[in-house]
This record gives sequence, C-alpha cells and structure tokens, in this order.
Amino acid sequence: MNVNAPLAAAELQGAVAAEVERQLQGFREQMERSLAEVRERTVDDAATIVVFSGDLDKVLAGFVLATGAAAAGLETSMFFTFWGLSVLKKKGAAAGPKNIMEKMFALMTPSGPEALGTSKLNYFGMGAVMLRKMMKDKQIASLEELMAIAREMDVKMIACTMSMDAMGVAKEELVDGLTYGGVATYMADAVRSRVTLFI
Amino acid sequence: MNVNAPLAAAELQGAVAAEVERQLQGFREQMERSLAEVRERTVDDAATIVVFSGDLDKVLAGFVLATGAAAAGLETSMFFTFWGLSVLKKKGAAAGPKNIMEKMFALMTPSGPEALGTSKLNYFGMGAVMLRKMMKDKQIASLEELMAIAREMDVKMIACTMSMDAMGVAKEELVDGLTYGGVATYMADAVRSRVTLFI
Amino acid sequence: MNVNAPLAAAELQGAVAAEVERQLQGFREQMERSLAEVRERTVDDAATIVVFSGDLDKVLAGFVLATGAAAAGLETSMFFTFWGLSVLKKKGAAAGPKNIMEKMFALMTPSGPEALGTSKLNYFGMGAVMLRKMMKDKQIASLEELMAIAREMDVKMIACTMSMDAMGVAKEELVDGLTYGGVATYMADAVRSRVTLFI
Repeated sequence: MNVNAPLAAAELQGAVAAEVERQLQGFREQMERSLAEVRERTVDDAATIVVFSGDLDKVLAGFVLATGAAAAGLETSMFFTFWGLSVLKKKGAAAGPKNIMEKMFALMTPSGPEALGTSKLNYFGMGAVMLRKMMKDKQIASLEELMAIAREMDVKMIACTMSMDAMGVAKEELVDGLTYGGVATYMADAVRSRVTLFI
Repeated sequence: MNVNAPLAAAELQGAVAAEVERQLQGFREQMERSLAEVRERTVDDAATIVVFSGDLDKVLAGFVLATGAAAAGLETSMFFTFWGLSVLKKKGAAAGPKNIMEKMFALMTPSGPEALGTSKLNYFGMGAVMLRKMMKDKQIASLEELMAIAREMDVKMIACTMSMDAMGVAKEELVDGLTYGGVATYMADAVRSRVTLFI
Repeated sequence: MNVNAPLAAAELQGAVAAEVERQLQGFREQMERSLAEVRERTVDDAATIVVFSGDLDKVLAGFVLATGAAAAGLETSMFFTFWGLSVLKKKGAAAGPKNIMEKMFALMTPSGPEALGTSKLNYFGMGAVMLRKMMKDKQIASLEELMAIAREMDVKMIACTMSMDAMGVAKEELVDGLTYGGVATYMADAVRSRVTLFI
C-alpha cells in the first residue's frame, strides 16, 4: 500500500480490523487469564451434608435439608460416617463375620433407620416413637419416605469406608445404590459446595 | 458510503470510531457473558446458621457466631428448627389448643430461653445455672442479651414452620419480629452464604 | 490537518491506533472494575472447623475432616471453643489459680485429649476405651496422632479466648503452638472458606 495515496473506505475496514486485532490480542489473553483465575475461586450449585449423628431427629433434619437443597436445584451429597452409618443398614441383612469388638458395636448401634433413637428425651425409644407418631399425625414424611425422596432426587449417598472398616460393617449389610468413599471423596464434593453442614 | 471513494479526515474519525466500536462489540458481549457466568458462581457477604439444638451452651454458641458474623459485615440469618424452636418461645405466652401429643411435647421441651439446659453436665438444670453464673461473673453477655444484640444487628430469625406444625406451636407462643418459613426459605439464604453452620 | 483533505495511509495508521486505544481504555477500565467486583465475591481454598464438642468421637471426626481438608490442598483452621477447649489441654499442666466456679468446671471437664468420653454409649468411659481399642486394632490414627498430623500439615489451631476466660483456663494449661483469638478471628478465616463446619 502506498502510504501517500488517498485512502478508500474499503481500506479503512481492513486497517481498523488489523489494529483492533493487534491491540486486543494482549488484552484478550489478559482477560482470559483473569477470568480463569476468578473462576477457580467460585463454587458450584452444590451442597454436602456430613451425617455423623445416628439420632433420629438429627438424621431427619439431615434428609429434610438434603431434599430441600436438591429441590433448590443443588447437586446434593450426604456423607454417612460414624453413628450416621447405621442409617444405611439394610433391614435384616445377615451381618458378615465379626470379631468380639465388632459384635459389641453392632449390638450397641441401631440396626437400621427404624431403630434410631432421638438425641433428647429418648426414654428407651419412647422419644422416637412419639416423634414418629407426631410426624405421621401431621402427615410429615417419615425417615424412610424422606430417604426414598432423596434417592429420587438423585441425592448422592456416600458410605464412609473408614467407619465401615472401623466398625466391621460390610457392604452387604448396607442398602443398595450407595457410593463408597472416605474423607477425600467427601472433600471433593465439599470444596465446590455452596452449603456445607455437619450434622 | 462508497467503499471506493477517497476518505476525508473528518469522515475518517467517525468511520474509525464506528468500525472500532463494531469490532469490539463481539468481544465486549463475549466478556460480559463470561463475567455473568462467573458472577453466578459467587457468594454474597452472608452467613446462615441452623439452630437445631435447644441446649443452652449450643444456642449461646449460635448467637455468639451470629452476632460475630453480623459484626464482620455479613448479612446473617438464623433458622430455628426442632429443639431450637424453644429458644423463640415468648415468656408466659398462653399456648393455643393442643392435642395430647402436642401437650406432652410442650411439657417435655423448654418453655423459653430461660429454661434451656446444657448439652453436657446438666444435672437437672445445675449445668445451666453454673454456666449462667459463670458468664455473669465474667461479664459475658447472657442469652437474652445476645438475642437483643442480634436483633439490633438485624440478624434475621426464621421460625421453622414445619417444626411449629409438627409440635403444635402457634405464632402467638413465639416472640415478635420473626420471619416464618420452611427449608426453602432457609435454603434461599444458605445458597448465597459464605458461612453455613448447623448447630 | 485539513479535515476535508483526502487522507494518506500513514495518517490512517495513527488515527486508527489512537481510536482503538481510546475505546479500549474505557472498556479495559470497565472490565477491571467488573472483575474486581466479582473477585470480592469469591472464596479461597480454605476450610474452617468449629470444634465446640469435647466428645472423643466428634473431636476425632473434626481432626479427620481437618487433615482431609489440608490433604485436599485447603488452608485449614480449627477453632476450639467451649467443651472443645479441653482437647487443647496439656498433660499434667499445673492449673493457674482458679475461683470455686472455675475449679468445679475444671473438675467436670476432661483434663486433656486422653480423657475425652464419647457422645453416645460412653458408660463412664467404656465407650471411649472401646472406640480407642477398635481404632488401634484397625490401625486408624489415634486422636493424639491425628493432632500431630494436623500440626505437620499446618492446620491452624485457634483457642477461643472467650471460652478460656469464661472457664478460667490459662495459656499455660494449653499445648504449645496455638493461635489465640475470639469469634472475630474465627470469622476472618470462615468468610473466605469453601468449607465451614460446626462440630
């Protein structure tokens, strides 16, 4: 192009395009770096609940919150650990071979969701009976119903493998459709969650 | 504009500006989409605390954390559910008509903040008396004072309507200035919160 | 420059460059404002755990989660308050001068990590003995080992100064290497955390 010749509009188009491109190049890269950096510090629409407790009232609260989170559009996971593992026990499942300590623990922990007591006023099971009756009278979903709803809503249920190992609980003793994992599995969900609760 | 006609300087200024504008437009829109996408994955300066427990020590911790969050500039909400509902009971409020189960529950749960026991070492109320005396000796705010401070700091207090329904507790039995809602109300605050606790 | 005279290519280059520069300038500033605004609504790779409980099982869960968070690359802090303060007590440390209430509290709370009971089935310490034996049999790290691992992983341990004051616990009674602070210290970590738990 002759730098002293008069310019046509067509030439302008090209000149502007080239210059915008040239000047934008660095800026575009810089913005993409900044955006990527910020994006790494964001969260997903996710919620994670550690169910440590095996008390009926607390476990109920856990499922009400989990189904509530799922209903709010959050990808929800529950991590059942320690006493909370009892919630996942299958009805009448034959227990695997256990050593004495494991047998004692099995005797002392609930045999499944129907056998959970309340955290307060349990009075040898009376609290749980009352709570269950009250919920039925008020047509509030029972624990078993809430568990079924949670499954339908794709709430992920993780059985803590460290707790299973510690208490001598085999996979065969637990309900189907669980994810198995330890604290690393839980943490992978928790780090990207908006809501993280320990119950 | 005839693309082959020569351009004058005045025309050029306008043409360059328009062309730069046009070429930047796409980039600008792309950046705004990216920013909007990232913004959706961010959080507000907010905190939410589920007060499930009705134990004096835990409820105190809840209010210390809630007022601490408000003092740190966070929009703070507390969701009182299950045993935690007792905290909101008005002193000497006439209870509405209750059925037998509801009467039993009312008898078995604290009648208000002054009647809460501790989670450990309660010894029929001695733990609560000791804890309250110790806090007074050390000039630490009492539960009632902390509740007043929380109100002054605009901490939102939500009474769980599902718990009210389940336990047969009427609005008239609770203190004034509450928000009423269920898990969906709680979740709407929780999803945009930096701090989410279950006490 | 005569605004009506035809333009040469050389002049165009300069005019285009200047106009692109000018338009980009405003856009760049706007993007940087938007980015800064979004960045303020992000979180750090951090986790905070309030250890309110002094129950062996819950404290163990706290340390498993804290070391798990640290292993996942999160900057992790634990805030030991109320009953949780007992976890930090040094073995055989001479207690400072205490008033009667403080002495009673000291008698009634565990003297350190070895003396913690379980939240359920404690049976005057049997639950803790069983839990410790089971963990040993399964080669799961003990509380003392987990505490050492947490230290090695740079988990920050904050002793709640309000609890220390309330219970009359002096710094000399606690292990070394702690951070001292109140709810504001905790909240400063919590607001920028991905995971916030209350145990």
